Amino acid sequence: MNTWLDISKDSDFSIFNLPFGIFSKKKSKPSVGCRIGEWVIDLELARKLGLLEIPRNIFNQNSLNPFIGLGRKRCNEVRLQIQEWLSVENSPLKRHFYALFHKIDELNLHMPVKVGDYTDFYSSIEHATNAGKIFRPDNPLYPNWKHIPIAYHGRASSIVVSGTDIHRPMGQFKPADSASPIYGYTKELDFELEIGAIIGRNSQQGEQIKVADAENYVFGFVLFNDWSARDIQRWETLPLGPFLGKNFASSISPWVVMIDALEDFRVNGPIQDPTPLPYLQVDGARNFDIKLAVRLNESTICKTNFKYMYWNIAQQVAHHTVNGCNLKIGDILASGTISGSEANSYGSLLELNWAGKNTISLNDGQTRTYLENGDRVSMHGFCEKDGKRVGFGEVFGKIV
Amino acid sequence: MNTWLDISKDSDFSIFNLPFGIFSKKKSKPSVGCRIGEWVIDLELARKLGLLEIPRNIFNQNSLNPFIGLGRKRCNEVRLQIQEWLSVENSPLKRHFYALFHKIDELNLHMPVKVGDYTDFYSSIEHATNAGKIFRPDNPLYPNWKHIPIAYHGRASSIVVSGTDIHRPMGQFKPADSASPIYGYTKELDFELEIGAIIGRNSQQGEQIKVADAENYVFGFVLFNDWSARDIQRWETLPLGPFLGKNFASSISPWVVMIDALEDFRVNGPIQDPTPLPYLQVDGARNFDIKLAVRLNESTICKTNFKYMYWNIAQQVAHHTVNGCNLKIGDILASGTISGSEANSYGSLLELNWAGKNTISLNDGQTRTYLENGDRVSMHGFCEKDGKRVGFGEVFGKIV
Repeated sequence: MNTWLDISKDSDFSIFNLPFGIFSKKKSKPSVGCRIGEWVIDLELARKLGLLEIPRNIFNQNSLNPFIGLGRKRCNEVRLQIQEWLSVENSPLKRHFYALFHKIDELNLHMPVKVGDYTDFYSSIEHATNAGKIFRPDNPLYPNWKHIPIAYHGRASSIVVSGTDIHRPMGQFKPADSASPIYGYTKELDFELEIGAIIGRNSQQGEQIKVADAENYVFGFVLFNDWSARDIQRWETLPLGPFLGKNFASSISPWVVMIDALEDFRVNGPIQDPTPLPYLQVDGARNFDIKLAVRLNESTICKTNFKYMYWNIAQQVAHHTVNGCNLKIGDILASGTISGSEANSYGSLLELNWAGKNTISLNDGQTRTYLENGDRVSMHGFCEKDGKRVGFGEVFGKIV
Repeated sequence: MNTWLDISKDSDFSIFNLPFGIFSKKKSKPSVGCRIGEWVIDLELARKLGLLEIPRNIFNQNSLNPFIGLGRKRCNEVRLQIQEWLSVENSPLKRHFYALFHKIDELNLHMPVKVGDYTDFYSSIEHATNAGKIFRPDNPLYPNWKHIPIAYHGRASSIVVSGTDIHRPMGQFKPADSASPIYGYTKELDFELEIGAIIGRNSQQGEQIKVADAENYVFGFVLFNDWSARDIQRWETLPLGPFLGKNFASSISPWVVMIDALEDFRVNGPIQDPTPLPYLQVDGARNFDIKLAVRLNESTICKTNFKYMYWNIAQQVAHHTVNGCNLKIGDILASGTISGSEANSYGSLLELNWAGKNTISLNDGQTRTYLENGDRVSMHGFCEKDGKRVGFGEVFGKIV
């Protein structure tokens, strides 16, 4: 499939992708757009021009939630319609090109969804084993880990869109050589490379989403950086889990890639042994082959892949609702840090520096254990197969 | 201060209280009301009649959030104006009595606020010590407990208003005599007696709310029942804290008692030793003398008091934002289970039955360890001093 638009061969935003997000021009209100190459298509204008049969007050909004509320089937029909128009010469998109297409670098991008609740999983066995080895060398994986997609609730209010500066948090922590805790700026500021699933359909309180049906509740995915302050986290975490070590900020990429755009990149996940309980058993290729990388300033310091995840999104959704907890459109289920088995595939500095024991060498000759002020972290992810490329662009944040 | 309205002497909703909530009549939309005795005053109608100078689209809403957004000072002015009108014979409230006053038993009550994020603290030293003794007899309080108002993020979407039935959750847990986890209905369904603070003012990401200023970010309080499934919680909780053992439901009382209505009931909290770090140090009487009780079916099984809390709301707010985490109007900061030092003052069945070792005798001759289907749990709270009574009514839920 080709398009009359000039798109770079290595663009994440090929005609096979067409993710949705929220953009604004100078002095105009935020509204829904569809990304193609270095362009954004103005969907509210397309609607006004009569090209898309979508109700009013869906596209002229500051979040995708109302659009997602139309149902994934309808949203994907919009996506496929755009795809068709981009592939044929005689198309209304081409006729209205100058009105409908905005250059990406002339736009502001906003949070794509209004997040009700944000859940952070812990579904990479490599990450859980590394974190376990660091803190509990004799007992890296807890007995529950292979039975439960472990998760906890994170903070929704502090999730920000890519490009937002990240303030180094202050807090309370206890250095190893101190009898009492001290107050100050975190000395162990870290990132976590994750992928966030955007919930696409409401469930009711008391309702269980069955694992075989669970993907129907997922609209799509974003890149997710779950910033962490390891010293604060370490001191506060017992017995109720992470709180201030995490909730100061998380960053997400602005374009939500629909799960429909990822169909060609499905792969089988790792074998799960012991076999999970029946409510978590699911057939088919439920993992996605998404190549991931983290850049710190000018250096790529991690390369890994989403396909390594032990627990998949269907299992996460089924587990999340097994007790009747209700999910809502716009909720984010983040994967947890994504690590591979090689030392250069770890998705956090905690693992890359092995809790401060190693330093990480950057291209410019500098070294890092944790993040310093002014550091720029970007995460990238894309799928590629048979000449098709579907990607997420980046999630970027600078420490201030 | 007296009122021309007939109010029972032992009503929680005296002229000194005047809490706000959301009500609806049959076939009408939810809107803001003010509770007095067995009556609810229709504030949108009062505005339309020209009695209250409040902008449009504040009272005709399904949450208090827009009203709270006017600022606590303005909200309390409305409360004091109503109080004055209730205390003088020649008052517009009395003139329009038949239009403005609805009988409480003819109304539906709704969630009073739209909750963005819900945080659950762990601020009762008696509860933390009991929970510690039960699970870790040799180490009841973790070393961080007296330095940090420990907290974690809970689920916002599953918070429901008093009166909503609670579905017994299913899930995964591991009986002591089983080698593997099993799936089924929780056998250890519990309540937690808490008080929830409703945030009244937004803070910005990166901003610290100073402890001396922190109460200005609190609009008021509600009773809060943080339903818990202990077997699910026990199996899932390491290393990231509670998740499905908690997030199936929490219940709140429908009337938000303004912090201004509680001024006369301030008391000093327990002495904090060791002295907290400076960002948590605060002078003055920051605790509130609120008498609390839990009834299971027809039996009162717990009597305790909010004044026992080790960490107060000012310290909780300051700690929550020390890392720059932003708070939003409508967020709930719950206290954590409120227990006293006596065995009949424990705010959860876990403590009352000491992890299943004891049974609790009810008035009707039945006994309980954990909740059974059909059980009705209500929590009650009120302040009383010098003939003034200010209370919360109840938060009620039935297990189905």
